[in-house]
Amino acid sequence: MAVKHSSKQFIDGILSGDRTLLSRAITLVESSKQEHQDQAQEIIEACLPRSGKSVRIGVTGVPGVGKSTFIEAYGNLIIEKGHKLAVLAIDPSSSRTKGSILGDKTRMETLASDPRAYIRPSPSSGSLGGVARKTRESIILFEAAGYDYILIETVGVGQSETAVHSMVDFFLLLMLAGAGDELQGIKRGIMEMADSIIINKADGDNVKNSTRAQAEYKSALHLFPPTDSGWIPEVITASALQGDGVENAWEIIDRYVRHTTTGGYFKEKRAQQALFWLKESIEQDLTNDFYAHPEIKTLLPTLKDQILEGSLHTYSAAKELLKAYKNKG
Amino acid sequence: MAVKHSSKQFIDGILSGDRTLLSRAITLVESSKQEHQDQAQEIIEACLPRSGKSVRIGVTGVPGVGKSTFIEAYGNLIIEKGHKLAVLAIDPSSSRTKGSILGDKTRMETLASDPRAYIRPSPSSGSLGGVARKTRESIILFEAAGYDYILIETVGVGQSETAVHSMVDFFLLLMLAGAGDELQGIKRGIMEMADSIIINKADGDNVKNSTRAQAEYKSALHLFPPTDSGWIPEVITASALQGDGVENAWEIIDRYVRHTTTGGYFKEKRAQQALFWLKESIEQDLTNDFYAHPEIKTLLPTLKDQILEGSLHTYSAAKELLKAYKNKG
Repeated sequence: MAVKHSSKQFIDGILSGDRTLLSRAITLVESSKQEHQDQAQEIIEACLPRSGKSVRIGVTGVPGVGKSTFIEAYGNLIIEKGHKLAVLAIDPSSSRTKGSILGDKTRMETLASDPRAYIRPSPSSGSLGGVARKTRESIILFEAAGYDYILIETVGVGQSETAVHSMVDFFLLLMLAGAGDELQGIKRGIMEMADSIIINKADGDNVKNSTRAQAEYKSALHLFPPTDSGWIPEVITASALQGDGVENAWEIIDRYVRHTTTGGYFKEKRAQQALFWLKESIEQDLTNDFYAHPEIKTLLPTLKDQILEGSLHTYSAAKELLKAYKNKG
Repeated sequence: MAVKHSSKQFIDGILSGDRTLLSRAITLVESSKQEHQDQAQEIIEACLPRSGKSVRIGVTGVPGVGKSTFIEAYGNLIIEKGHKLAVLAIDPSSSRTKGSILGDKTRMETLASDPRAYIRPSPSSGSLGGVARKTRESIILFEAAGYDYILIETVGVGQSETAVHSMVDFFLLLMLAGAGDELQGIKRGIMEMADSIIINKADGDNVKNSTRAQAEYKSALHLFPPTDSGWIPEVITASALQGDGVENAWEIIDRYVRHTTTGGYFKEKRAQQALFWLKESIEQDLTNDFYAHPEIKTLLPTLKDQILEGSLHTYSAAKELLKAYKNKG
């Protein structure tokens, strides 16, 4: 950052919708420098009372399912409806896809060039906890800047889906017809988190297969217990490339928001998520401190070996480690 | 306990298959008295090298699905095949079912009276972590005493299934035909953990429905990604009451054990589970200590309220709490 801004400049800029200052503030959020972190916290705290007023949507699916095309089509629809849209990616797991999900902005050309949309490439890789935190803090800034629809994209192959599921209002799973091979990449448990499944690429020769897949997933989801909100996940087909099904996806999410707002579930879920993240960050800090302790670093590998060869009980090992940790300093 | 035994007496007794001493040792494991805990640990450590040689099977399903009848029929088959069987229940969640799952031994009359089977009623209620620990320690004692099949029963409505799933080799889900109402009680996510689903009570008028349910679950499971072991969960119908399908259930688990032993997955999963429980007990101890701290007890409710009314950021709250915790003493 060439120019240094005061926290007040950042806050005023974000609240008035200044994209440049918003971008720089997110860069502060993503920075690992203590000085940047401190300023980021000040900005976030000031933005907090102005945050919360958005629909947060998680979008996941394996590479090749057409996420970028879908987000482009869906995002354009959202802004046509008069909303402001922010898109960001979460992908802490790999250097393989580092920066490639949304970094290649050319894949979302029209959306990226629209002033009503803000596309943020994937943050630099890091621990899941760290990336989850950065993402949640970026959401606060987006909301304070007036973005009322926020899409969070993940690749559906790692642990990040569970994290994203715990920070969004609606979780959307993109799939392809032909259940066999395409599913290999999707982690077990993700389908159960979906509030809606969209069978994408339902065009050309693929229409018939997609309709069959839709029926199969529908009956499969029907076998599952209802969600906490009483919402029954919907399965539709779409061709994001041709624009088919995108309006339908919009209507489903809109219906979901109305369904959950009426009963108070929408707000209640957000409250639960906030307390979940409080618990998560406490636990993360406690365990980070534990595993970083020099004595633990020395002791742990030995005890693990003993556990694996069956000569040490896990609870005795835990006891020994905790004793070493508490005797520190 | 009227008579006090030395740890050596316990260990010798367990290793020679003495049921009375085994029972008393498990009572020590379940006791919350420090003196009992210390002796239990000594016994467990000594039994550890003789443990591990069993097939551990989790059995779950909502009340009314026929778990007791199934376990009775299945257990009798296991001992007829020449094995020694231990059955225990895990149900930390409620006083509602306290002691009722297996406490009512009359529901498993023939099994309970057979010297080749050992049925242990549900341990006294407590935290999930505590009950999980007691269950895992009991498994060690059972194995050291020569029980080579261990069934762990849960009620399918709480969090205990995830814990049990992390301590067994095979996870069996009992269901009923007529997917609608019966599913209400099953927690989301449990079906994905199942290595096999048994549609029980497939008798009389219910046969047709059960066969249809079998086909539905089969096709539903087929839509899910494969398990880590490459094992495809099997769905069968059974009438535990009439003894139908029980031999089939035996064959499935037998096939699973052979399938996973061949590739080394069986052993690898056990190793992963051991490290999982090491991690779990460390985290549990760290967080217990944190939440029990007087200052945290005072501060936490206030900060939670501020988070819920949107005036405090979760990470700032965590930071404040951790600072208070670290300044202790």
